[in-house]
Amino acid sequence: MKFENIVTRVGRMPLPGALTAETYDYRAEPLDALKRGEIRIETIYASIDAGARGMLDPSANYPMLLRPGNRVYTSGVVGQVVESLDPAFSPGDFVRALSVTRQKYLTVDPKRTLGVRKVDPADGPLHIHIGALGMTGFTAWLGMFTIGLPKPGETVLVSAAAGAVGSVAGQIAKAIGARVVGVAGGVKKCDAVVSRFGLDACVDYKADGLSAAIDATCPAGIDVYFENVGGVVQKLVMERMNMFGRMIMCGQVSQYNGSCSGGGGAGGPNLMNVINRRLNLRGFISSDHMDMFPAFERSVLSLVRSGKLLPCATVTEGFDQLHDAVNSLSQGRNFGQQVHQMADDPLNA
Amino acid sequence: MKFENIVTRVGRMPLPGALTAETYDYRAEPLDALKRGEIRIETIYASIDAGARGMLDPSANYPMLLRPGNRVYTSGVVGQVVESLDPAFSPGDFVRALSVTRQKYLTVDPKRTLGVRKVDPADGPLHIHIGALGMTGFTAWLGMFTIGLPKPGETVLVSAAAGAVGSVAGQIAKAIGARVVGVAGGVKKCDAVVSRFGLDACVDYKADGLSAAIDATCPAGIDVYFENVGGVVQKLVMERMNMFGRMIMCGQVSQYNGSCSGGGGAGGPNLMNVINRRLNLRGFISSDHMDMFPAFERSVLSLVRSGKLLPCATVTEGFDQLHDAVNSLSQGRNFGQQVHQMADDPLNA
Repeated sequence: MKFENIVTRVGRMPLPGALTAETYDYRAEPLDALKRGEIRIETIYASIDAGARGMLDPSANYPMLLRPGNRVYTSGVVGQVVESLDPAFSPGDFVRALSVTRQKYLTVDPKRTLGVRKVDPADGPLHIHIGALGMTGFTAWLGMFTIGLPKPGETVLVSAAAGAVGSVAGQIAKAIGARVVGVAGGVKKCDAVVSRFGLDACVDYKADGLSAAIDATCPAGIDVYFENVGGVVQKLVMERMNMFGRMIMCGQVSQYNGSCSGGGGAGGPNLMNVINRRLNLRGFISSDHMDMFPAFERSVLSLVRSGKLLPCATVTEGFDQLHDAVNSLSQGRNFGQQVHQMADDPLNA
Repeated sequence: MKFENIVTRVGRMPLPGALTAETYDYRAEPLDALKRGEIRIETIYASIDAGARGMLDPSANYPMLLRPGNRVYTSGVVGQVVESLDPAFSPGDFVRALSVTRQKYLTVDPKRTLGVRKVDPADGPLHIHIGALGMTGFTAWLGMFTIGLPKPGETVLVSAAAGAVGSVAGQIAKAIGARVVGVAGGVKKCDAVVSRFGLDACVDYKADGLSAAIDATCPAGIDVYFENVGGVVQKLVMERMNMFGRMIMCGQVSQYNGSCSGGGGAGGPNLMNVINRRLNLRGFISSDHMDMFPAFERSVLSLVRSGKLLPCATVTEGFDQLHDAVNSLSQGRNFGQQVHQMADDPLNA
């Protein structure tokens, strides 16, 4: 064979806490010859998604659970075409694919695989297409435009505001004209949420006085809440939601990190305010709504091109260092999208 | 004056537990002469509403709090016209009015007061117009048709299924073709929910093995939950909701009864299932949606007339016995709508 493929599978199930080099297994596996219509992509970047740690923890209550030997999925990869039997793609083209397995050489039929398209290097770093323009950006956009629907002047609170989804959600809400407050962990992240992403304020959930800080930054209450974290922030927010408020239920990352024992079963907020204040809470998972992906791409690409949405990623390297990339995310070391670089990027050498 | 009016006000704020004769105060107050367009109604029946007890308990977290001297409202009264300066109404007509204060003689302008209309005694007992055809029926209908939207064959669980709202909600869901399971307190109520209202099953929340009983009666999970109670039932239901399930957040009566200390602040269910199962929880209060009242009336009147919806009420008597009527409701003695009779009913003498 011309190309030696390497496939990533789950090796050993992790103990609570950080993943180790044994968590994943990288094994050479034979490649079939390309079939008519297929292309072969050398993966350069793979997205590291919020559920990556939770999927390895049976106690985490995460919707998907992986077991040793299972292939590892990612919400998106960007790479370069190395072989093509589809006339629309040529070797050297930069290509993005969504919801694929993590391999050195990915073989796909662009007509049958989700979100395969050539990407334009002029739109930003290659990994923007698996970040703000990939499933994480789509998640932020879906939540904001199908559930949150903030009106200009309303107060939007975004948790994990320095994270992959939150950083896009906050900027989209700003572009709509809302007053947008972030919640993030640490002074450095909070500063960046305001100075870099342009949010009106950011509350540091690791500092003392969280409750007072939310009051101070949301003096008119909260109309829309983008929920990424759960736990104590969720309870404080529930008490401060305005009449007819919307809670975009995207994730509860504080509760499916393997280091947080039993989080999945911990109590939540009393729901009396849901009734008294006529709140709407809606859970969603972006893969249910792929029919809206083209509308998202048009909308967010125009924000990116006009400079209203600054993408942001934390990139870690090393094909066999996936555990480190997942640890970066689950330990909150990332700023924006967590990306794993699996091969050299010819545009950023 | 031809008529001596008596107005009901809050007397003494109650201690936790049952209301006493001192809770309310019944005082003669002067009546103005009728103005052009007004009518005067002798009140026969007044609705006793779910919030009646909670409104008197500052710790109950209920949206409205009454204080000594405040007039007492009711979601609806039925009475008989005694004077009229509106040509559309004549003395002797039976009339229903919504969201009014509780007085012996109620003076309203039918064009300016909510839901004032002549009622047809052929449609059932007079108090049906403040029950299944009043605000409680409207609440059941709104929840089912704007939030729950059950499809034929889906499983609908209704809490407080023998109560005013629940008994209508369950029958509406049956009329739509859903499989409907009730939750009620005690064997007698549960039997009636099945035999009288025609629900497919009813779970007794006072019996042992609540969790197993819900499993046994909802083997395919729960698609729509009509929430009237909160507490432990809510937690068990949240764990059994199906993908894309809807939770109609109408009330948490277990948490605003004055006898249940601190209920309003108790923890709720973890919201992870809201995300994983793409649930929608929506709180609503029927008075926000009066524009839909005519549609409700047409819809539910046709169910009543075709015998698909059997109204049901518990009537207690005595103008100055309001505390007893409220106790009947907050202690769960009622079956169906709790109604307070304030004067003789000429149609049921």
